[in-house]
Amino acid sequence: MAHPVLPLSLDRSSDLPLVLQVANQTRELVHTGSLRPGDRLPSIRALAADVGIARAVVEHAYDQLIAEGWLTARRGAGTYVAQVGRLAVLTGARGSPTTATVNAGTGGSDPSGSNKAGSDPVRLDTGSPWMDPRHDAGWRRAWREVSAAHIPRGYPDPAGLPELRAELAAYVSRTRGVSCTAEEVIVTGGTTHGFGLLLDVLTRGPIAIEDPGYRAAAAVTEQAGRAVIDVPLDSDGLDVRALRSNRADIRAVYVTPAHQHPLGITMSAGRRIALLAEATRRGAMVVEDDYDSEFRYDVAPMPALAALDRDRVIYLGSASKSVHPGLRIGWLIGPVDLVVAMSARRATRHDYPPWPLQRAFLSMLREGHLDKLVRSARRVYAGRSHVVAHALSPYGKIISRPAGMYLTVALPGRLVEAVRTESWRAGFDVPSLAEYSRTCGMTGLVIGFGGLTDEELSRALDVMTTALARLSG
Amino acid sequence: MAHPVLPLSLDRSSDLPLVLQVANQTRELVHTGSLRPGDRLPSIRALAADVGIARAVVEHAYDQLIAEGWLTARRGAGTYVAQVGRLAVLTGARGSPTTATVNAGTGGSDPSGSNKAGSDPVRLDTGSPWMDPRHDAGWRRAWREVSAAHIPRGYPDPAGLPELRAELAAYVSRTRGVSCTAEEVIVTGGTTHGFGLLLDVLTRGPIAIEDPGYRAAAAVTEQAGRAVIDVPLDSDGLDVRALRSNRADIRAVYVTPAHQHPLGITMSAGRRIALLAEATRRGAMVVEDDYDSEFRYDVAPMPALAALDRDRVIYLGSASKSVHPGLRIGWLIGPVDLVVAMSARRATRHDYPPWPLQRAFLSMLREGHLDKLVRSARRVYAGRSHVVAHALSPYGKIISRPAGMYLTVALPGRLVEAVRTESWRAGFDVPSLAEYSRTCGMTGLVIGFGGLTDEELSRALDVMTTALARLSG
Repeated sequence: MAHPVLPLSLDRSSDLPLVLQVANQTRELVHTGSLRPGDRLPSIRALAADVGIARAVVEHAYDQLIAEGWLTARRGAGTYVAQVGRLAVLTGARGSPTTATVNAGTGGSDPSGSNKAGSDPVRLDTGSPWMDPRHDAGWRRAWREVSAAHIPRGYPDPAGLPELRAELAAYVSRTRGVSCTAEEVIVTGGTTHGFGLLLDVLTRGPIAIEDPGYRAAAAVTEQAGRAVIDVPLDSDGLDVRALRSNRADIRAVYVTPAHQHPLGITMSAGRRIALLAEATRRGAMVVEDDYDSEFRYDVAPMPALAALDRDRVIYLGSASKSVHPGLRIGWLIGPVDLVVAMSARRATRHDYPPWPLQRAFLSMLREGHLDKLVRSARRVYAGRSHVVAHALSPYGKIISRPAGMYLTVALPGRLVEAVRTESWRAGFDVPSLAEYSRTCGMTGLVIGFGGLTDEELSRALDVMTTALARLSG
Repeated sequence: MAHPVLPLSLDRSSDLPLVLQVANQTRELVHTGSLRPGDRLPSIRALAADVGIARAVVEHAYDQLIAEGWLTARRGAGTYVAQVGRLAVLTGARGSPTTATVNAGTGGSDPSGSNKAGSDPVRLDTGSPWMDPRHDAGWRRAWREVSAAHIPRGYPDPAGLPELRAELAAYVSRTRGVSCTAEEVIVTGGTTHGFGLLLDVLTRGPIAIEDPGYRAAAAVTEQAGRAVIDVPLDSDGLDVRALRSNRADIRAVYVTPAHQHPLGITMSAGRRIALLAEATRRGAMVVEDDYDSEFRYDVAPMPALAALDRDRVIYLGSASKSVHPGLRIGWLIGPVDLVVAMSARRATRHDYPPWPLQRAFLSMLREGHLDKLVRSARRVYAGRSHVVAHALSPYGKIISRPAGMYLTVALPGRLVEAVRTESWRAGFDVPSLAEYSRTCGMTGLVIGFGGLTDEELSRALDVMTTALARLSG
């Protein structure tokens, strides 16, 4: 049977590697409907011959699209466009009878009243990164540049330093597939700050947020006087059917597609399309919080949701997980009219990142400090994620994909509380999945492994597995 | 007639100069009612002899209290405690028939459609400071310190760097008479950001704001979903009688007592007491925006309102007017329970100043950079204020006290618009008093002279006075 010919147009003089060119253009063919669910793709050998590239390039591109969920491989039968929109319920405990118990003890509060050291326990936080001290020179250099820089007089541009906006546009295009211009970028104090800026200019009305999800987004929404609509998840990401059945006049849907916080799953390709279709139907925006997508260590991360629809998706990024959580710098990418409206408000409120911060971060981007930190941390996280998964998988299902700086394991509520209590006594605060939820009954632990030393992580795992072995025995 | 003996207790080993000890203790006697309106004070010679200090010390202390409005001097008849609570209507144009015309053209928009250069005009902004380039070394040193500092891991303390909070407590106590501990200080991104933090933890309800007043405060209030109650002013500051007659459940009153923005007047001693009494009666907080009090150049600034009532007054300060408007760092001083509540919210939202910023500003405080900048700028502002007043006083009443980096002159609306149009054509954007008002009919110009070069200021004054001479002739 003759295989279809893919109309790929590759540019060997481009900075973009051929693997990404093949992957991007093939994805686009699926996204635009030129390739439809069930369609068979050319074999690796055939496509390589068609376009005159190495087979390994095609193989890598296909692997990437399979990992992203756009394609499926049938053993011995070739590669096909995936059936998108498939709904699979997570193997988990949502709605289990333990809900009430677990939801009662949340918020990182003391589950037992005292711990070994009598001092603050070490929190296994999902957002505290590991920073390679071998790269401290890049940090120091950035601040020396600030020290030596010409000191501009007067108020800075409320949208951000023009050079930094341009550098960020290039960075997001290179790393996340979102091609944009500097005019579409506004420099923020992090993802949560960026979301707050957006709420200031968005038509009044409720915001839909993943549940379990990022609690700060819900807090900011309610502080802005808006209702939060909690939307459940399944293994493909936000449950768009549940969203569709909601009657509220939702103005935006807040999602973490690359690495759902805190479940650690990736939103599937089909779900992305369904979400955009539903948002379009409602005239709502989609807010893509891309807080830690740098740290995918099995395959390259799927391009950002924003790459699929630049008019409807507001993209939020941050340096908190890659450079330093105390840096308080991030970026928002959106339609120019929204960026202009947010900048105009900031001209009055002056809630933009300090000029020296922007100048230092510009140096970190230009001099490759950010890239170095990401590469180092990715290696460390890959190792730690493996260690944590290996230790805990005998006791519960590992829900999260191998990515980021935390791992989520489903456990019955009884075990969760027991492990948290024993860990607390040993000086560790282990987040419960219930801390991130308002309505969902899933129970489990969210093990942040970025901010710990190797020794701390090892001790924490010992305490947890000892407790689990005894209680499960 | 025997003069009263003042029960002063001076400490020669204290760091506090004797002049300030005499002034502070005498002020306290008035404030607590030990000295009552109309009471005669000891003569300079008598008090000097009573407590064993130089006459010049007493003279300076009395002058300071007269400037603050606590005392009055009757020529040849001695010094008396002032009658507080006196109401005097500003010589101005509030409610004049020109209101509608003036209020129609506001917001720093283009009053004529084009200007000479075809580029952005130079705005005579009230908040752009002059920074002595001779002190750039202090700025550079601070960033070198950041570069060399130990890089702390993890999220910083959401209330601010402990060393910086302690340094700020000492600074505000030394310069503004507000003695407080580090626990009462929270580091902010500036006065407006600090006000936003407060609104997040304050019981819901309207906020009273001076009108004319600081427009960003009104914007932040409305963005937080609260109503703004506009309260008029007279020559003593906020009109407390107007506030008293308002039936709304006001939760806080936002004032700029040291240097009312934009009128440039100082809230009198009596009015301060009346305001605190009215706030107490209502159970409302008072928010003291002390944005530029460093720059009083005739006498030392009156101590902050917060020095009179630490439980009811929230004090807001900023480095934007002294160090750099792009620094985005400030401080809020308030009761510990409020500081704790604000910090708890920031632990989730992470909207605190970046760690490197706080570390650099700590260096600027410790190494005297801030003090040097303030001393230099104060001298420049004193000279520029005199030049602007001399140029414009033939045409209108100078409303503002000699302080800060702007001067406010009352002018009929017809002249205001004509001067603004001619200035715009020459490349200058001169703020109209009406830009700062929502309900008040006062008309005039607000001449910010901090951010300009000497040459720009000279040219701008030439354009304005030429227009005024022609139109008034």
